Amino acid sequence: MQTVAVKNIPRADADVVSRLESFGVATVHEAQGRVGLADPYMRPIYAGARIAGSAVTVLAHPGDNWMLHVAVELCQPGDVLVVGVSADDTSGMFGDLLATSVMSRGVKGLVIDAGVRDIRDLTQMGFPVWSRAVSAQGTVKETLGAVNVPIVCAGARVSPGDVVIADDDGVCIVPASTAADVALKAASRTQNEEEKREQFAAGELGLDIYQMRERLAAAGLVYVDSAADLDEY
Amino acid sequence: MQTVAVKNIPRADADVVSRLESFGVATVHEAQGRVGLADPYMRPIYAGARIAGSAVTVLAHPGDNWMLHVAVELCQPGDVLVVGVSADDTSGMFGDLLATSVMSRGVKGLVIDAGVRDIRDLTQMGFPVWSRAVSAQGTVKETLGAVNVPIVCAGARVSPGDVVIADDDGVCIVPASTAADVALKAASRTQNEEEKREQFAAGELGLDIYQMRERLAAAGLVYVDSAADLDEY
Amino acid sequence: MQTVAVKNIPRADADVVSRLESFGVATVHEAQGRVGLADPYMRPIYAGARIAGSAVTVLAHPGDNWMLHVAVELCQPGDVLVVGVSADDTSGMFGDLLATSVMSRGVKGLVIDAGVRDIRDLTQMGFPVWSRAVSAQGTVKETLGAVNVPIVCAGARVSPGDVVIADDDGVCIVPASTAADVALKAASRTQNEEEKREQFAAGELGLDIYQMRERLAAAGLVYVDSAADLDEY
Amino acid sequence: MQTVAVKNIPRADADVVSRLESFGVATVHEAQGRVGLADPYMRPIYAGARIAGSAVTVLAHPGDNWMLHVAVELCQPGDVLVVGVSADDTSGMFGDLLATSVMSRGVKGLVIDAGVRDIRDLTQMGFPVWSRAVSAQGTVKETLGAVNVPIVCAGARVSPGDVVIADDDGVCIVPASTAADVALKAASRTQNEEEKREQFAAGELGLDIYQMRERLAAAGLVYVDSAADLDEY
Amino acid sequence: MQTVAVKNIPRADADVVSRLESFGVATVHEAQGRVGLADPYMRPIYAGARIAGSAVTVLAHPGDNWMLHVAVELCQPGDVLVVGVSADDTSGMFGDLLATSVMSRGVKGLVIDAGVRDIRDLTQMGFPVWSRAVSAQGTVKETLGAVNVPIVCAGARVSPGDVVIADDDGVCIVPASTAADVALKAASRTQNEEEKREQFAAGELGLDIYQMRERLAAAGLVYVDSAADLDEY
Amino acid sequence: MQTVAVKNIPRADADVVSRLESFGVATVHEAQGRVGLADPYMRPIYAGARIAGSAVTVLAHPGDNWMLHVAVELCQPGDVLVVGVSADDTSGMFGDLLATSVMSRGVKGLVIDAGVRDIRDLTQMGFPVWSRAVSAQGTVKETLGAVNVPIVCAGARVSPGDVVIADDDGVCIVPASTAADVALKAASRTQNEEEKREQFAAGELGLDIYQMRERLAAAGLVYVDSAADLDEY
Repeated sequence: MQTVAVKNIPRADADVVSRLESFGVATVHEAQGRVGLADPYMRPIYAGARIAGSAVTVLAHPGDNWMLHVAVELCQPGDVLVVGVSADDTSGMFGDLLATSVMSRGVKGLVIDAGVRDIRDLTQMGFPVWSRAVSAQGTVKETLGAVNVPIVCAGARVSPGDVVIADDDGVCIVPASTAADVALKAASRTQNEEEKREQFAAGELGLDIYQMRERLAAAGLVYVDSAADLDEY
Repeated sequence: MQTVAVKNIPRADADVVSRLESFGVATVHEAQGRVGLADPYMRPIYAGARIAGSAVTVLAHPGDNWMLHVAVELCQPGDVLVVGVSADDTSGMFGDLLATSVMSRGVKGLVIDAGVRDIRDLTQMGFPVWSRAVSAQGTVKETLGAVNVPIVCAGARVSPGDVVIADDDGVCIVPASTAADVALKAASRTQNEEEKREQFAAGELGLDIYQMRERLAAAGLVYVDSAADLDEY
Repeated sequence: MQTVAVKNIPRADADVVSRLESFGVATVHEAQGRVGLADPYMRPIYAGARIAGSAVTVLAHPGDNWMLHVAVELCQPGDVLVVGVSADDTSGMFGDLLATSVMSRGVKGLVIDAGVRDIRDLTQMGFPVWSRAVSAQGTVKETLGAVNVPIVCAGARVSPGDVVIADDDGVCIVPASTAADVALKAASRTQNEEEKREQFAAGELGLDIYQMRERLAAAGLVYVDSAADLDEY
Repeated sequence: MQTVAVKNIPRADADVVSRLESFGVATVHEAQGRVGLADPYMRPIYAGARIAGSAVTVLAHPGDNWMLHVAVELCQPGDVLVVGVSADDTSGMFGDLLATSVMSRGVKGLVIDAGVRDIRDLTQMGFPVWSRAVSAQGTVKETLGAVNVPIVCAGARVSPGDVVIADDDGVCIVPASTAADVALKAASRTQNEEEKREQFAAGELGLDIYQMRERLAAAGLVYVDSAADLDEY
Repeated sequence: MQTVAVKNIPRADADVVSRLESFGVATVHEAQGRVGLADPYMRPIYAGARIAGSAVTVLAHPGDNWMLHVAVELCQPGDVLVVGVSADDTSGMFGDLLATSVMSRGVKGLVIDAGVRDIRDLTQMGFPVWSRAVSAQGTVKETLGAVNVPIVCAGARVSPGDVVIADDDGVCIVPASTAADVALKAASRTQNEEEKREQFAAGELGLDIYQMRERLAAAGLVYVDSAADLDEY
Repeated sequence: MQTVAVKNIPRADADVVSRLESFGVATVHEAQGRVGLADPYMRPIYAGARIAGSAVTVLAHPGDNWMLHVAVELCQPGDVLVVGVSADDTSGMFGDLLATSVMSRGVKGLVIDAGVRDIRDLTQMGFPVWSRAVSAQGTVKETLGAVNVPIVCAGARVSPGDVVIADDDGVCIVPASTAADVALKAASRTQNEEEKREQFAAGELGLDIYQMRERLAAAGLVYVDSAADLDEY
């Protein structure tokens, strides 16, 4: 492993990032073909936040948050700090002091495959975090990892500069190279869903809207009047 | 497996359902002999909701929400949609469009042994969901399951038309055939708890209210003055 | 095992307890050398509570809450009830009646390595609980355990009279014998963090505040300009 | 809940049971449409066993194995004891004494959604067990459950007399009413797999055997020569 | 926390240890009142080993095995090394080199609430380990813990010199002060089980051996002839 | 997402692969700086296997093994099939037929972040598998993923052609570009460990071999004669 910090990374277009933020995780994840989602154990420390930004990535080791301090200096306004760990860990690597530090640099939030602490303070500061755990367990500063290299965070590949979208539904990663295209698809999807929502609200059925009845019958679905008509169960 | 949808199911008396809703999960679960509780990994997407209704059941396969669309058409006002899956799954099978659809039919909520998404929207819509996970992971519509057959949801047996009660404490299933009896027992239990609560609030001890002292002594409980009197530890 | 209840326990100085409460879990845990933290699966039933108090300890068996009733009588104002179980258990051992009972005796909260129920009521009553699970599953009163003996709760050793601190970050145990010393260290730590927070807010970097740059270089950290300079990844 | 023991249950035809045993879990599960599988946390205490038999069902409560003693008397040669618990539990409900008892009655094995102990003895006795956990934790005999009523075991519905098949792949339940039909389908499936196995061994590809190429192309699969031809990743 | 290594510890009588080893975990655990059992996630790296010995305890921090090296020097023939960690950890803290080292000092085995590696080598060396995980993840030597202080390992309290018994059923801790008494009770229990085993093998029922029938009836158990007699289910 | 299959991938030098196989997972993982390890939930279906080979990667969707059939055609002798899934899944995606197919092409083993079935057959065939679960749950062939693109498998990044090493300790991934260098470091490490092993076997202490005593004292480790000298605990 190279113990390295990469100073300059590509960042996605601010407008694309902004649009992806507006669509949210579920829509963006669908728009890019149902890949890039972090594992669902990643939960926000408080409800209601939605952010998107360019990923500054950190590869840390269990129980050691040294690399987070290295990463802070390389953050720019609009970035999201994304931390992967070389082994399962729930230590509380990040608290209110680091939050104060990254907020002063315009970082929008943190996604960390480990623990976080001082969550009452972070909530009051309005600094959103998605984490695997809440834990007060402190960490050391002894082992080098890397900053701004490709990492895995909660099962998702993240390269520096990828767009991170996070909200109450979880965390999704969009490669910088496809972000603009995904934003277009997400916009189209959103518009389509708008129309569908009105139909559903009016009482129309998905069976009809999506013309599923014929395909269901072809697949072998049988309707019976009541349980008395069942052969088994 | 019969890939089947049962159109008509028995439903519990509306008044019985209403009373079970008023008692809540913990009381109803006790009243029916401590069975019928879904596993505690089933959590509400927002705090404070309490519902009861007749179960419309769905047997789905992992990563596939096709049968939910079939189920919608068979729902009536006051029903609760209950989804079991043939294998462990956390996919986001249900989101704001399906919620819009079932709300338009008067469905009171969803209990799903899989994932749910768009939870900010669902919260704003006031549509309560109890689920195993929150996940944006999308699903396909490829494999038939069944609607309104007996299922297992989070370890609990659910037959179509059973009464589902769900609140901040979890989810409890009451067979339709015993619902009225359980409601009576729950009412009695609630009244008894009312009296007990006053005694406890007045400082009386459970030891005295439940006359436990003699039984504790018979079982061998020994009181000592201080740790110095202990033989071990 | 002695099936015993110890009537009198040492309790920490009220002022020390009060100061530990004001510092919170993360700071206290650091101040005593990063030990004594309960496992992070222990979560509060509602956000925002912070308590500290002397531990009245209960050793219970799975699915059996008999000893909790014995413990109530031995509680004093300012105590925190701490329950360990002899095997993994998520049963709902504690609900609104027991909460009414212990509140009438001035108990500040509950820490239980099992389940809790009636959490909506407990929330409305303002009685904070940290638990492993929320579950309506009822319990029996059949098997003796012990009260006010040393226990393990969620991986943490707790002796009767130890100071329990609990907030949104979790639960931390401070031995009574070191509580005053830990409070001093926590105060010093808090003051130091105050100063650091201002520096961070002003944009200073941890790299400089903690003088990490030289040590990072000595450990072998290399800065490169861009991904093009990486040998691997 | 009725605290009841049902003395007589229907049992599947011995020849059907024997054939289902010969096919094994994976084949039987496929043959009945991919339902009826217990959760994969159910693991055998030793490798290599394969059994099938009629289910004698037990509904127990956490930490309480009283009903297992009731069930023994109702077992016949060729039966499999299947235990569900009303809440999550890993207690060691079953050990070498109970195994001696049920073996003396011709019971073929145990499937238990809880813990088991004395596994070295059980292994030496050749008594196969599929369980959620191995645990020495003892249990009490205090609370009534039921014997030979429908239960849930590790997520699978089991009615008394259903055929239980268990091997290194896990545990599958076949309703007695469909067992003969499932055995026929499994036989057909096994024969078909025999032929396929020879084709695969000879180097033929599933792509060709199952004629997947056209369908893959229609679905949009693109072949490229090398990574240089990829747009993303 | 005191960062300390205690050189001399009390050790249980060799004969008592030897007898406890012969009884095994399940019997010893019962004999001491169903306490002292480590969580069932602790599993042996190979089947068939059974050991007992005096505990040399280690308090380590996540991802750091420094204290294990300190502990080796303090081990004597017949000891068992027991490692607790200040936070959840699956790192591979122990491998074949440390095993070679402790084996040269007569240590009988390792119980570690973290990961272990080189398990094929350890198996060939005949060095038994009970661990939470198998993991190759390496560890650092940076942070002081303690040796021979009271710890928690997998939910069990362990004091230096306590007797550790471990076999295929798990790990049990017996306080040194009660070890002789527990050995007596275990012997009595074993003899009693011997007699029971013969009765069970001869086809006698637990219902009769333990005279349960009257108590079951009193508790409300009802026998019915067949499912047709059930009111519910 | 590109639904694509890449036909040609770089493969590591056969001699390098062979040497990495001989060193095993723990040594290789250390030699490359403690990165690249799959999560420890990945376990072999039988003990004693050790393989290394070039990764043919598969990105599959939950409950769908279609892409595995596409991958078979692209395998060469000495390859290892590595499967990542776009969401948590334990379905049994791979069984004896697919094993027969890939064995006929010289594939050395399978690493799959999902379930596997027919494990008795696979064991008898001598085809090693490392998986997240054993499950008979069948899968469909409906949704396209990709073959030979970079994936995440059990938390580890895997690019096509990376060297996969797997044994009883788990699974480790070495990028093709650094494989030769890692093999050199692993050889050096192995030689060093050989020498250390002799020293340890001769009773020398790690404290002396690694000259830790001074550093421990500097860090603050205090030796005391007995527990009587402790201030706390």
